Amino acid sequence: MIPLNLSEVYKLIEPGPVVLLTTHGRKKDNVMTMSWHLMMDFEPPTIGCVVSTGDYSYEALLSTGECVIAVPTVEITELVTKIGNSSGREINKFKVFNIQTTPSENVKAPLINDCYANLECKVIDTSMVGKYGFFVLEVKKAWKNEDIDELVTIHHRGDGEFSVDGEIIKLQSKMR
Amino acid sequence: MIPLNLSEVYKLIEPGPVVLLTTHGRKKDNVMTMSWHLMMDFEPPTIGCVVSTGDYSYEALLSTGECVIAVPTVEITELVTKIGNSSGREINKFKVFNIQTTPSENVKAPLINDCYANLECKVIDTSMVGKYGFFVLEVKKAWKNEDIDELVTIHHRGDGEFSVDGEIIKLQSKMR
Repeated sequence: MIPLNLSEVYKLIEPGPVVLLTTHGRKKDNVMTMSWHLMMDFEPPTIGCVVSTGDYSYEALLSTGECVIAVPTVEITELVTKIGNSSGREINKFKVFNIQTTPSENVKAPLINDCYANLECKVIDTSMVGKYGFFVLEVKKAWKNEDIDELVTIHHRGDGEFSVDGEIIKLQSKMR
Repeated sequence: MIPLNLSEVYKLIEPGPVVLLTTHGRKKDNVMTMSWHLMMDFEPPTIGCVVSTGDYSYEALLSTGECVIAVPTVEITELVTKIGNSSGREINKFKVFNIQTTPSENVKAPLINDCYANLECKVIDTSMVGKYGFFVLEVKKAWKNEDIDELVTIHHRGDGEFSVDGEIIKLQSKMR
């Protein structure tokens, strides 16, 4: 993995792909799928996301204030689905699904080797956690997998239906 | 337009498409493009989004507490880009771009006829508006365009680059 400039992070999150969220818990690390997230600022990259009390990752995220957001590509959709269909309450997903990881630099949650990018995040605002499970994260360090050239992500439409990135179009745009 | 069940709304927002946000201002209605949004709850459908003080729509959204989120398809990408590249400070986008609208039932912001779906929203939480421009919205009524069969959305990757929905894959999933 090679460092990715923090000013590039929004390009990964803004399109709304399914991502993976890893946490370091007292008992074990965990990884969950997540589709309820948004960009909130460019630099430092600020991301908001919903992790609910029903998610096993919730307690670790709240108590450590740390996580990693990993961006998978379509190649590992089957793994992503397995992660989404199981709970850290019952299994150690990293072991059961043989997920290869690398230690992070700034947080204790692990990076996922086979993802296109990994974002080391610290929780910076918990004021909406009680009401909505909404966490505000600041990305401290970003990594890109140098072995994956093309970013083809998946987007969850509910009920296990995903749209895969197709054509890329480039237009004159001042849109952020 | 025909009513869309509120329990179906998350399927439109969760995949992270570029959307349009309309507001009813004292001087004029406006429409902006938006990519910084997320689902926060299924029912009632709760959506969070960032509209910054630099956006012309900001004042109308804050003062009226109302908006419409419209979901465009790839067919109107050119219009979406025009909307994103201009400001309501300078022009009336509805007139200049000849955007056909229909009155909403519950809010004063207009529905956009040529979009796949339209969501009438009320602002329900402004506690993060000052710090992040983050508005929490509740969808009061949802509409679907009966003339558009297929949902093919666009996702902004920054700098005017968009990925268009390609293949749809269906997997066994318990993911929300």
